[in-house]
Amino acid sequence: MSLTIRLHITLHSTFNLHTNSKTKFTSYSTRIKPKPIYHTNPLIHFVYNKPKMLNSSNPVSVKSSLIDPDGGVLVDLVVPESQRGAKVLEAESMPKVKLNKVDVEWVHVISEGWASPLTGFMRENEYLQSLHFNSLRLADGTVVNMSLPIVLAIDDETKESIGSSKNVGLVAPDGGLIGILRSIEIYKHNKEERIARTWGTTAPGLPYVEEYITPAGNWLIGGDLEVLKPIKYNDGLDHYRLSPKQLRQEFDRRQADAVFAFQLRNPVHNGHALLMNDTRRRLLEMGYKNPILLLHPLGGFTKADDVPLDVRMEQHSKVLEDGVLDPNTTIVAIFPSPMHYAGPTEVQWHAKGRINAGANFYIVGRDPAGMGHPTEKRDLYDPDHGKKVLSMAPGLEKLNILPFRVAAYDTAAKKMAFFDPSRAQDFLFISGTKMRTYARNGDHPPDGFMCPGGWEVLVKYYESLQVEEASQQSTILSA
Amino acid sequence: MSLTIRLHITLHSTFNLHTNSKTKFTSYSTRIKPKPIYHTNPLIHFVYNKPKMLNSSNPVSVKSSLIDPDGGVLVDLVVPESQRGAKVLEAESMPKVKLNKVDVEWVHVISEGWASPLTGFMRENEYLQSLHFNSLRLADGTVVNMSLPIVLAIDDETKESIGSSKNVGLVAPDGGLIGILRSIEIYKHNKEERIARTWGTTAPGLPYVEEYITPAGNWLIGGDLEVLKPIKYNDGLDHYRLSPKQLRQEFDRRQADAVFAFQLRNPVHNGHALLMNDTRRRLLEMGYKNPILLLHPLGGFTKADDVPLDVRMEQHSKVLEDGVLDPNTTIVAIFPSPMHYAGPTEVQWHAKGRINAGANFYIVGRDPAGMGHPTEKRDLYDPDHGKKVLSMAPGLEKLNILPFRVAAYDTAAKKMAFFDPSRAQDFLFISGTKMRTYARNGDHPPDGFMCPGGWEVLVKYYESLQVEEASQQSTILSA
Repeated sequence: MSLTIRLHITLHSTFNLHTNSKTKFTSYSTRIKPKPIYHTNPLIHFVYNKPKMLNSSNPVSVKSSLIDPDGGVLVDLVVPESQRGAKVLEAESMPKVKLNKVDVEWVHVISEGWASPLTGFMRENEYLQSLHFNSLRLADGTVVNMSLPIVLAIDDETKESIGSSKNVGLVAPDGGLIGILRSIEIYKHNKEERIARTWGTTAPGLPYVEEYITPAGNWLIGGDLEVLKPIKYNDGLDHYRLSPKQLRQEFDRRQADAVFAFQLRNPVHNGHALLMNDTRRRLLEMGYKNPILLLHPLGGFTKADDVPLDVRMEQHSKVLEDGVLDPNTTIVAIFPSPMHYAGPTEVQWHAKGRINAGANFYIVGRDPAGMGHPTEKRDLYDPDHGKKVLSMAPGLEKLNILPFRVAAYDTAAKKMAFFDPSRAQDFLFISGTKMRTYARNGDHPPDGFMCPGGWEVLVKYYESLQVEEASQQSTILSA
Repeated sequence: MSLTIRLHITLHSTFNLHTNSKTKFTSYSTRIKPKPIYHTNPLIHFVYNKPKMLNSSNPVSVKSSLIDPDGGVLVDLVVPESQRGAKVLEAESMPKVKLNKVDVEWVHVISEGWASPLTGFMRENEYLQSLHFNSLRLADGTVVNMSLPIVLAIDDETKESIGSSKNVGLVAPDGGLIGILRSIEIYKHNKEERIARTWGTTAPGLPYVEEYITPAGNWLIGGDLEVLKPIKYNDGLDHYRLSPKQLRQEFDRRQADAVFAFQLRNPVHNGHALLMNDTRRRLLEMGYKNPILLLHPLGGFTKADDVPLDVRMEQHSKVLEDGVLDPNTTIVAIFPSPMHYAGPTEVQWHAKGRINAGANFYIVGRDPAGMGHPTEKRDLYDPDHGKKVLSMAPGLEKLNILPFRVAAYDTAAKKMAFFDPSRAQDFLFISGTKMRTYARNGDHPPDGFMCPGGWEVLVKYYESLQVEEASQQSTILSA
């Protein structure tokens, strides 16, 4: 048996350029675990057991992997090339389930092990645990986080066509066979309950719900997934789509001794950059020699008014080109999950996915995965609940959660800075919506809000939208 | 470190009078726990390790307590009599929070340790864990079940009056001081989110919501509770209100070697009795010498058309008088919790409360804590979800869950029997609603549905209701 210690760094007061630079840790809790299921985190030794070790002549050795995937083994469901022909033949003889765009995104997610130890779309036992407990208990009694139901819906007709078959073939929207679901289980899709327990509201206007749950079938089909070949999108961005396995290899190749993940679905502004650079600086100060940033934009479904993935990827490139983030210590890759906008429930999924990709630090800010309430004039979630829920979530104990104070535009210093409540009047909050409005109207945001190259990408995108809208309008007028 | 083994008895196939009498166990899972936090369950040894032990000359010794309370220690928040005077004086000087009827029921529940290790109304960290994870993680890393938010709502005016005070006095609806809440924390009461995550719906018409959440204040106040004296109702039923401590003492006094709890909020019919007597028979067959039934009607808030507590208690008495249940091996007591009708979420609370009262077996049937959907013509919950969720719930691993097949009226045998799907046409399902309709209309249910003494109690109750209604109507007409 091994003793592992969970470190909860309260960054609100300590992880801040403007206060004293001494590393203070205001809370930690000890936890005895039945099994050591991940490699020792050097930070823990540094801070808790051997405070001077990393500054001594005996540095911590670089681990081949900084954090073990959930369940101990990274799931990989892509059929080996040698078996592909036979599997395709087999799949062709099975009843078929037609997938939509988001179903394929989930197939991608599951097949590469982002949701490890999940090996397919959820059966009812997994679905119920996810819905009620945001976690799954494994056969050995350990618990992994699993906050979003990862499910596949089918309609009555498809259920009928499956009959008593045990396996089904999965068909992409373009008609191509992409996978097999084996030892299937079909159970009721109670949409109201799924929505209420996942989003904490059933108000109309939730983007994922409107697009992908309300129109979905009344049944869910779970089973073990096999994917016939790696999922590709052929959109010019596939080289950014590194699997958890590839990311882990890359971290090893770079000899990272810490990996800190930053989830985003918006363009990177200097507030984000401040937060990421500050994290790196402090990790170095703590004794890490080579902390690597995983800049990890979400690549699946997003709501209509979010900036599209290709524009965001171009913007992220400019941010690195402009030197706002250091390319030598940053890996930019796409997290292939669709977005639920389910706040405290979803942020757990965002963190859990990054454990599987090998990140042992996760940055969380204000209102993660949140949005405005669809029918009321307020945030859908309490902006502080995300980090609170994340820090208490079952199965995430092995991840170092880095909660951050919000960054805002400091009109006195003319740059993005951590919000200082003692001079609140100096700070300007520029939300994603506000940023998009600036760009859409061709207005300039305050100097220092975003690097010029990155801003230019956004302005061009919104100009192109206006050209498109104008051309659509003229088509309508001339019709 | 000790190895504890969780036994999941699949009673659907084995716990049945009509099939073979051999004890088959179709599933179990082993779990290594960091700490042995409860006494060894003799059943486990009997079935798993030493199948013949209880039949040998070396019987298992009777434990002073069959199952440890959650958190290891039974919470008792009633102020010792010697300190009462001083505490009352102190409370009088504090800002006051006025409680309603259900708030007082929760004060009762918390003060006696039914919700151990909870020591007061939830602060936000506990509330969020309950809402998202149905469980609380303790400082030592162990997890206890906590599926319902046990919270106290206050309005803006009360919040204002509390100001920056750290402690508040709790005032009963009659104006009397009943307790103190210390080191308070006030946080937002997002009713929509609470309702959605607890009930899995926000449809109008949920009894607890309509009565006690919708009209409640927009703030929740958590803190450590002290109760100035034991909560009494003076309704002639207080002698049935045994605390978890008193129940544990009674089980010890009777030298119970197994305690099986039966939660109910309806009159006991012969289907219930079949199930309870069958459980006892099988526990004896397994080698237990003295299994005790805890017949444990819920005594707090119930919806308007449920049979009131006093009538139910009289009905339960008749059932024991008529010999349907054996008074020598049955303890009838009141579970003081209010009812949420929150199905799979609430059944966990019902089971957890009984752990604290010392029961190590919990019987669960079809659709526990369920009701009809308030706006749609269907059950609000899948009738099978309750037992599934219960069997997977975090923190309930130490409890033996006994899921049962549904009992129905067998028109061939003219008695209540376990439903046999091979001759489904012989069975008549008599729901709580149907039973109440029979009694209300003065109709006789089929012979063998309920003992005559018990039935008479119900008929009298509904007759008295009709007299009351008639008198109210004549008052209206003459007005």
